[in-house]
Amino acid sequence: MRALRVAVLGATGAVGREMIKMIEARAFPVRCLRCLASAKSAGTTLPFLDENITVQEATDASFREIDLVFGAASADVSRRFLPAIRNAGAVFIDNSSAFRLEADVPLVIPEINPEDARAHRGVLANPNCSTIIALIAVAQIRRLSPIVRMVAATYQAVSGAGAGGTAELLAQIEAIRLGETPVASAFPHPIAYNLIPHIGNFLGSGDTTEEMKMQQEGRKILHLPELLVDCTCVRVPIPRAHTVALTLETESFLSLEQIRAALAAAPGVQLRDDPKANVYPMPISVSHGDIVEVGRLRRSRALSSGVSLLCCGDQLRKGAATNAVQIAELL
Amino acid sequence: MRALRVAVLGATGAVGREMIKMIEARAFPVRCLRCLASAKSAGTTLPFLDENITVQEATDASFREIDLVFGAASADVSRRFLPAIRNAGAVFIDNSSAFRLEADVPLVIPEINPEDARAHRGVLANPNCSTIIALIAVAQIRRLSPIVRMVAATYQAVSGAGAGGTAELLAQIEAIRLGETPVASAFPHPIAYNLIPHIGNFLGSGDTTEEMKMQQEGRKILHLPELLVDCTCVRVPIPRAHTVALTLETESFLSLEQIRAALAAAPGVQLRDDPKANVYPMPISVSHGDIVEVGRLRRSRALSSGVSLLCCGDQLRKGAATNAVQIAELL
Repeated sequence: MRALRVAVLGATGAVGREMIKMIEARAFPVRCLRCLASAKSAGTTLPFLDENITVQEATDASFREIDLVFGAASADVSRRFLPAIRNAGAVFIDNSSAFRLEADVPLVIPEINPEDARAHRGVLANPNCSTIIALIAVAQIRRLSPIVRMVAATYQAVSGAGAGGTAELLAQIEAIRLGETPVASAFPHPIAYNLIPHIGNFLGSGDTTEEMKMQQEGRKILHLPELLVDCTCVRVPIPRAHTVALTLETESFLSLEQIRAALAAAPGVQLRDDPKANVYPMPISVSHGDIVEVGRLRRSRALSSGVSLLCCGDQLRKGAATNAVQIAELL
Repeated sequence: MRALRVAVLGATGAVGREMIKMIEARAFPVRCLRCLASAKSAGTTLPFLDENITVQEATDASFREIDLVFGAASADVSRRFLPAIRNAGAVFIDNSSAFRLEADVPLVIPEINPEDARAHRGVLANPNCSTIIALIAVAQIRRLSPIVRMVAATYQAVSGAGAGGTAELLAQIEAIRLGETPVASAFPHPIAYNLIPHIGNFLGSGDTTEEMKMQQEGRKILHLPELLVDCTCVRVPIPRAHTVALTLETESFLSLEQIRAALAAAPGVQLRDDPKANVYPMPISVSHGDIVEVGRLRRSRALSSGVSLLCCGDQLRKGAATNAVQIAELL
């Protein structure tokens, strides 16, 4: 693989910083790295290999002579710079939700649907973080039988809201320790010692944009256009790693042994399912890693041909940065 | 109502202390209050009205000349003292799981099935805390139509494991702040900045005893012997209040407006469901109160004639102590 000229758009955010670490850690072949962010963050330096790279303000001119752009900014920023990235002839692997559901944009989890990446026309999308973490396990079940319906509840870490989320949790915990009033700005309410059932924006249906992603992106990634998903997304006061509790119904009956064997052999998955020995997925054991832990596998009572399970993964790593670099490696 | 001679068994635990506060706060007619606990806690004093009551070791003789016993101890302790309580002729309102599923023991949430209390034969049981918090809302839907199936995921506070749970969370957060290693003893793993998908004991099916309560107790309280429930119980690093995310299917189709109207009129419930104004149930708004907040009401995609909703309540108050005192008031 020839070395590429790479840009990271949104380089100073929580996902951007992880992307730069993953590009380095996975020895992705980089000829030069350009770190781009808003005017506010320009001038910051970020470590990469033996260098300190100075962050530049992203402008239309930033993508000249770049082969590959990793997007780690908001959907609006991704949409804003798409024409400039296309004009430069660069491939854009975007972590935002801007293009995920567009017909000509592959939405890829390399362990699940690497073949979809081939049809790209310059833009590939990285799925939503909770969706990646849940589907890494669900895709193994889907190989054994189509999935009809799924009910999910998430336990999402504060760093999912960006680097400001983690700082806010820690500042609020410190304020409470000192008897002061916690200040909320990254979240609509205090998150320390609390839960907030609100991630993304509310739609007319009462669901949030975040909750709809599990069905919309799940249908595309699993090639199940009629998959039905209910999802409740809840922010929890932990710094890293998202957990998803799932109950799903398969078209054909699957034994727990079949599912367990498939999960045990699956890439990117670690089966942590020995509950009597207190072994099950947990945020502290997956944080800062690329593995999605899966456990608490058991039969469902409520759904026929159903099973329940729990998935847990670092949403900045496998849920975002690592998955994006893996997509680049595929190409 | 004549004043009663009352004992609290397990008076020094998290639930026992709340029971004594609720007996006082609700002006329950008490002639004398006896506080009972293990030998280890005997000698402690507990405030009640203008007195400080000295805790006595619970023995078979402790229940003589007592009319009413509130049980706030473990199932084993409740079983151990049942014969002595019966011999004394006292009525036993027990918060443990010891007798909940016995045919001649009413399992009562006063807002839902007060009529069941009448058939008691000396023992009445208080339901599981997460079950009370979920069913307070679900019972309103059940009045409109039988419920066929339900998928629940819980977010349970550390005080659900007793007073030691809260102390352990705070000690671990302090240890991490100081760069020390957090010590776990109330829970099998560190809970600070973590989640633990393990409450109660694991059964051969892979479910926990805690997870089975939602179906077993739900069937009895709602008079729906064939109700099917999947439940995943997760401990979260917050001090007080349990949250339950629910998706359920009703036998007849119900409109959201019908359900909303029923919830708005329901005793013990506060409808907090104006998401666009950032209004939804949260632990910090229900802590130290008796109201169960219900919100995030929306149509289910996965279940036909289904809805999703979120319930949040203080599990030591309405989930335990308040409900027990309300049962006593019924009698």
